[in-house]
Amino acid sequence: MTRPSLDDFHAIVPAGGSGTRLWPLSRQSRPKFLLDLLGGGRTLLQQTWDRLEPLVGPDRVHVVTGISHTGGVREQLPDLTHLVVEPSPRDSMPAIALAAAIIAEREPEAIVGSFAADHVVEDETVFAAAVGEAVAAARTGLLVTIGITPASPSTAFGYIEGGEVLELAGAPTAHAVRRFVEKPDLATAQDYVASGDFSWNAGMFVVRASVLLDHLARLQPTLHDGVREIAASWHTPGRDEVLARIWPSLTKIAIDHAIAEPVSLEGGMAVVPGTFGWDDIGDFAALADVGATSTDGTIFVDADGLVISAEGTTVAVVGLTDVVVAHTADAVLVTTREHSQRVKEVSAALQELGRADLR
Amino acid sequence: MTRPSLDDFHAIVPAGGSGTRLWPLSRQSRPKFLLDLLGGGRTLLQQTWDRLEPLVGPDRVHVVTGISHTGGVREQLPDLTHLVVEPSPRDSMPAIALAAAIIAEREPEAIVGSFAADHVVEDETVFAAAVGEAVAAARTGLLVTIGITPASPSTAFGYIEGGEVLELAGAPTAHAVRRFVEKPDLATAQDYVASGDFSWNAGMFVVRASVLLDHLARLQPTLHDGVREIAASWHTPGRDEVLARIWPSLTKIAIDHAIAEPVSLEGGMAVVPGTFGWDDIGDFAALADVGATSTDGTIFVDADGLVISAEGTTVAVVGLTDVVVAHTADAVLVTTREHSQRVKEVSAALQELGRADLR
Repeated sequence: MTRPSLDDFHAIVPAGGSGTRLWPLSRQSRPKFLLDLLGGGRTLLQQTWDRLEPLVGPDRVHVVTGISHTGGVREQLPDLTHLVVEPSPRDSMPAIALAAAIIAEREPEAIVGSFAADHVVEDETVFAAAVGEAVAAARTGLLVTIGITPASPSTAFGYIEGGEVLELAGAPTAHAVRRFVEKPDLATAQDYVASGDFSWNAGMFVVRASVLLDHLARLQPTLHDGVREIAASWHTPGRDEVLARIWPSLTKIAIDHAIAEPVSLEGGMAVVPGTFGWDDIGDFAALADVGATSTDGTIFVDADGLVISAEGTTVAVVGLTDVVVAHTADAVLVTTREHSQRVKEVSAALQELGRADLR
Repeated sequence: MTRPSLDDFHAIVPAGGSGTRLWPLSRQSRPKFLLDLLGGGRTLLQQTWDRLEPLVGPDRVHVVTGISHTGGVREQLPDLTHLVVEPSPRDSMPAIALAAAIIAEREPEAIVGSFAADHVVEDETVFAAAVGEAVAAARTGLLVTIGITPASPSTAFGYIEGGEVLELAGAPTAHAVRRFVEKPDLATAQDYVASGDFSWNAGMFVVRASVLLDHLARLQPTLHDGVREIAASWHTPGRDEVLARIWPSLTKIAIDHAIAEPVSLEGGMAVVPGTFGWDDIGDFAALADVGATSTDGTIFVDADGLVISAEGTTVAVVGLTDVVVAHTADAVLVTTREHSQRVKEVSAALQELGRADLR
């Protein structure tokens, strides 16, 4: 099989979200995507770059991030040429739509794909093949998502129900999408996984830029007009003024709700199965699952779990199973695998204590 | 009741033991007695001084400590005049016997009392009254111990079985000692406490110096001769040479085994009940029991326990009950109240890891 050409393909990387369930490793000022959570020497953002840059080249990766993280992104990705800086966070649809509109200004028929900056992919070759199929499917005018083949009946993700095989050229595994469903309860998730028809929604969308903007014009017309106006000014001296004026007025909405859900119900979506091993490292349990190991020199006495500590500090755990300890220069978190979703509650407690600086 | 005169009474404070169950707060280089574990502004050694100095005056407190802790002791007790420095640790009998022999050189009929440097006493007035009774009982030639009235059937302490009331002048509550028993199992401890005849052995011994030395001459003659020879040189230029020569040859033995147990079986001991509230803070569970509270700013989300952290670090605990977290600049311990006795095992693990510097 010849891999379909990716010459007209651009990768959009929304780099947002602080990852409050990974506190104190992640902070508002040091979000998850800027961290080397697996200790392999590359941050999640850098790993995302490493995965996408070979497919599209350095000039067709577009990172969208908040104003406070531009320094971190530029430092970590020295070869990045397209950085879109959001004046304020307005969720994923404005971020992706603006990047797509900027690309469409110069290449209206380009295919764009969105890939979060803080996810982990195990097998990059399998990932590349899935992207290739998604691009091929997107050339037919469909909005395409790469749906992750579930490794477990997780209740942490939304699901995508697939339908019939579409038999598209270059995308033999693409199925129609029946519907998107929100995070289910465990019993429902078990049914989904048992059926074989459902995949996890990892927020990977591949679509022709013009198709995306046409859907947006129809479904979120003011948002469409806003990003179009900003994009038109992007390569002009007026960019900053237009961005500052229009951005705050853009509807704050996720791409799932703005586009994916309605288009899927209209029959306009395809799903390509992702079997490359994926995780969004939503909490410390997930971090352990993707292979993070305890810091060298950690002492377990009748204990086990995941202990991550800053250099120069030794952690000893006595008599606790499945413990989670995360230590930084100014904070220590102690919990268990079972409670790792609740770490997000620490953020509110810090706010109450007047320690928003630690969030 | 007139309090008996304490004019001939000297306090001996053995300041030894690192407190491995309170790691990482306590270290070999920073032993328990040098720590302000309760956060009240005075270390355990200083609190011991504060308790004894009003009874005997600054010139009759004798601290015995290891060579590596002399700096810490002198710094914490600026008014201390008698510091006996052990060249190496040889357990409590050589330490106490040497101090007693030094005192006896100048005041053979002095009464001496030994009080550990790292215990907590709640009510100092009641403590002073017990010491007064013990001194009065010691004037009769008995070896006297202050036995702690048990607050619980603890298995962490040895016990002292009391016999008949001795009806001594100035010591109305003094009983004969029947025997010393080692740390019991829980069922035995429960029987002891239920009987009302047993008290905890807190290592508080009060005795005329000459009586102590006579017992020693009989029961541990080489140890007796050794400390006598060192004491004879104490106020001469030869002290250092004699100490260096003899100290390493002294039998390494606790006062309980060397003197208290055999003398109790001979009928030579009395016990005065100690009802002043006492603890040796043997582990983090005990530290919580004596009123230590978590560091300000600690966050508990569906959790409770004792969290002690160094300045500048915030600890958050999520979903763990009776947790114990102790944080210092270079180490973090995580355990539970239930496992706090096992913290001593961290020390061996550090040794194995080649991190003896952290012990």
